[in-house]
Amino acid sequence: MPHYNKLDKAELKELFAGLNAQYKEFQAKNLKLDMSRGKPEKGQLDISEKLMETLNIDDFSAENGEDCRNYGSLDGIPEAKRFMANIMEVAPENVFVGGNSSLNLMYNCVNFAFVHGMPESERPWCKEEKIKFLCPSPGYDRHFAITEQFGFELVTIPMTAEGPDMDAVEEAVKDPSVKGIWCVPKYSNPQGITYSDDTVRRFAALAPAAKDFRIFWDNAYAVHALDVDNLDPLLNVMAEAEKLGNEDILFIFSSTSKITFPGSGISATGMSAKNLKWFFGHTFFQTVCHDKVNQLRHAHMLPDFNCVLKHMKKHADILRPKFDIVLNALTPLGEEGIAEWTVPKGGYFVSVDVPVGCAKRTVQLCKEAGVVLTSAGATYPYGKEPEDKNVRIAPTFPPISELKQAMELFCLCVRLASVEKLLG
Amino acid sequence: MPHYNKLDKAELKELFAGLNAQYKEFQAKNLKLDMSRGKPEKGQLDISEKLMETLNIDDFSAENGEDCRNYGSLDGIPEAKRFMANIMEVAPENVFVGGNSSLNLMYNCVNFAFVHGMPESERPWCKEEKIKFLCPSPGYDRHFAITEQFGFELVTIPMTAEGPDMDAVEEAVKDPSVKGIWCVPKYSNPQGITYSDDTVRRFAALAPAAKDFRIFWDNAYAVHALDVDNLDPLLNVMAEAEKLGNEDILFIFSSTSKITFPGSGISATGMSAKNLKWFFGHTFFQTVCHDKVNQLRHAHMLPDFNCVLKHMKKHADILRPKFDIVLNALTPLGEEGIAEWTVPKGGYFVSVDVPVGCAKRTVQLCKEAGVVLTSAGATYPYGKEPEDKNVRIAPTFPPISELKQAMELFCLCVRLASVEKLLG
Repeated sequence: MPHYNKLDKAELKELFAGLNAQYKEFQAKNLKLDMSRGKPEKGQLDISEKLMETLNIDDFSAENGEDCRNYGSLDGIPEAKRFMANIMEVAPENVFVGGNSSLNLMYNCVNFAFVHGMPESERPWCKEEKIKFLCPSPGYDRHFAITEQFGFELVTIPMTAEGPDMDAVEEAVKDPSVKGIWCVPKYSNPQGITYSDDTVRRFAALAPAAKDFRIFWDNAYAVHALDVDNLDPLLNVMAEAEKLGNEDILFIFSSTSKITFPGSGISATGMSAKNLKWFFGHTFFQTVCHDKVNQLRHAHMLPDFNCVLKHMKKHADILRPKFDIVLNALTPLGEEGIAEWTVPKGGYFVSVDVPVGCAKRTVQLCKEAGVVLTSAGATYPYGKEPEDKNVRIAPTFPPISELKQAMELFCLCVRLASVEKLLG
Repeated sequence: MPHYNKLDKAELKELFAGLNAQYKEFQAKNLKLDMSRGKPEKGQLDISEKLMETLNIDDFSAENGEDCRNYGSLDGIPEAKRFMANIMEVAPENVFVGGNSSLNLMYNCVNFAFVHGMPESERPWCKEEKIKFLCPSPGYDRHFAITEQFGFELVTIPMTAEGPDMDAVEEAVKDPSVKGIWCVPKYSNPQGITYSDDTVRRFAALAPAAKDFRIFWDNAYAVHALDVDNLDPLLNVMAEAEKLGNEDILFIFSSTSKITFPGSGISATGMSAKNLKWFFGHTFFQTVCHDKVNQLRHAHMLPDFNCVLKHMKKHADILRPKFDIVLNALTPLGEEGIAEWTVPKGGYFVSVDVPVGCAKRTVQLCKEAGVVLTSAGATYPYGKEPEDKNVRIAPTFPPISELKQAMELFCLCVRLASVEKLLG
């Protein structure tokens, strides 16, 4: 198939007729597939079945002697802190272990700042005239949604192949109403980009006008490579910030949601001593403790970092073929000049740019033939992408056979949307 | 021993000398006991060991077919809703199942109101000049602490033998800045009082000036009787409120913290459809879902309400002797006119009134001899009791032998503090 831009009107009309016939056939199949969220498939959950058997029923003691079943240790048991410290690459004493959701820890940080203020705040953020938050885009819709929900103004920062455009970030933080930025530094959602050393160093050295500015460094995919033996190197942002005495600017997050069970894992945040005191102090009013039995399960099942890597290889073995299906399906679209994408080496998504103005239509066409994708625009602040070209593909949940069908349909819908656009 | 008030100065001095000698002996024992929190003892945790074995490793499906290990069902799986609905005496469709902490659900309700407002609020509570919250006292310090932390003014409502003084409540809610009240309606913390039918009916019919007023009905001890065959009857407040079309005034809470594991149980809230929609809508931004594997464990271990009651009898068998030790130890203090208390038929505490001005001194004396009690005043707003007479005893955690020693010391300290006071 030639490049679409080289086709004349008659050729486009003929193409459209053929594509449309194929589309009707797809609709007749009554597909019902979901590629909207970064959800592991059943086989990935089965990998962690040992999690349920790892505890000795006669001994729920943490290594500090505490009975994990009872109240206590709001910030987590020592072995769970160490476990999450390894993943986040911070010292165990800088770790607070939470419940099953790192999103909840992020929400809490924003919330505590809103209600009470950060340690350096002159007043709670709810008393500020205006708060702005930086959103590298395309990015994670659930991040943006939290700050939108609190009424902050979301500011789009373009993504580059090395991470957020740091010139734009450094310029934006001169505005004292800019209080934070969302980051997924490794195998980013949705592009799979790992921040370059230069990007990490510039974040570690960031000097915003707002003294209570925070970098929300969501290292959700720290060990989630498709080739675990060749994990993307990510410079240690905490170590870099500490060198400069700038460690208070960082909130680091991670979880085992895509290591063990998405609904029943453990989460953690890594913070400077000052931030940790602040976070602990506010969380104290919220709950007595998190689920330490589940913390103990995780620490027992994956006692050191090598075990974690070995475990992640099993995930990679399941995910690699799925990413291959997506990338292979996309190849002809590239030749036809109607799609561009980054090839992710980890994470849960493939981010595809279709022709300008064609993303919504592509998603709609897929939906009307039974395949649900992430809403077009969802990867941008307020769910609105000015150019309407980015589509996030989440290939992990459907089984291989369904994924193949879904990608076939996806490519067909990109073609249809593109031809419709060219025909005007 | 005669009534202390009948002793003359010389007799008091002689008494003091004897008590002081006994106290020195206690101090020499170097005790290190904790009776500060309502924490189950190890034997109570062992009762629920089946919780860890109840799941079939090959099937984590909820009855709606959902894989509990994965993301999904923010409001909980159907069997967990039914389980908590039985405990809270509301319809399953009115239940939202949370994580391991009902305190966190309560915090969230206050927080969502503060940041966004209740469904009927004219503006978020953070935009109000002043918010007041009613605190029936003595009451639960962790409740009061949440509303203090949000900067609300805490208003003390006296407790009666039938629950909060409803005349005082009905008068207080005429003030439109009064936005809520904390309640523990059954086996209340700390007195063990169960609200009378009249009290429940007056709550169900409450018509506050503030349209966004809420009753925080924390039914933490719904099935936590010392004689489970004779559970205190508590009128169904939701049913009463529904009769009057006043169901939106209620937030009901409960958890399994003192049914299974304090740190690893499940929590829930029961709400009207309108409130539930509001709560779900805000929780949606906070987390993807709660731990459904743990919900499934609970529903499997205790499949119906009879199983719950049978299970609670095992707790009662452990707790009854401990409450007997406390009450027997207190008896002479009553005869000496230096203590009054309510005899609880359930819950986790014995609330003791010592002579006015003697609570702090009693707690201090206990501490200096190695027994930690709940801080004096903790059961009142701001941790300050005007009369300084209430002490909360939490007898559940220490083993019998230690509890006996601790109560011996406690009585000695009440006597010492009382004599010191009488000597002026």
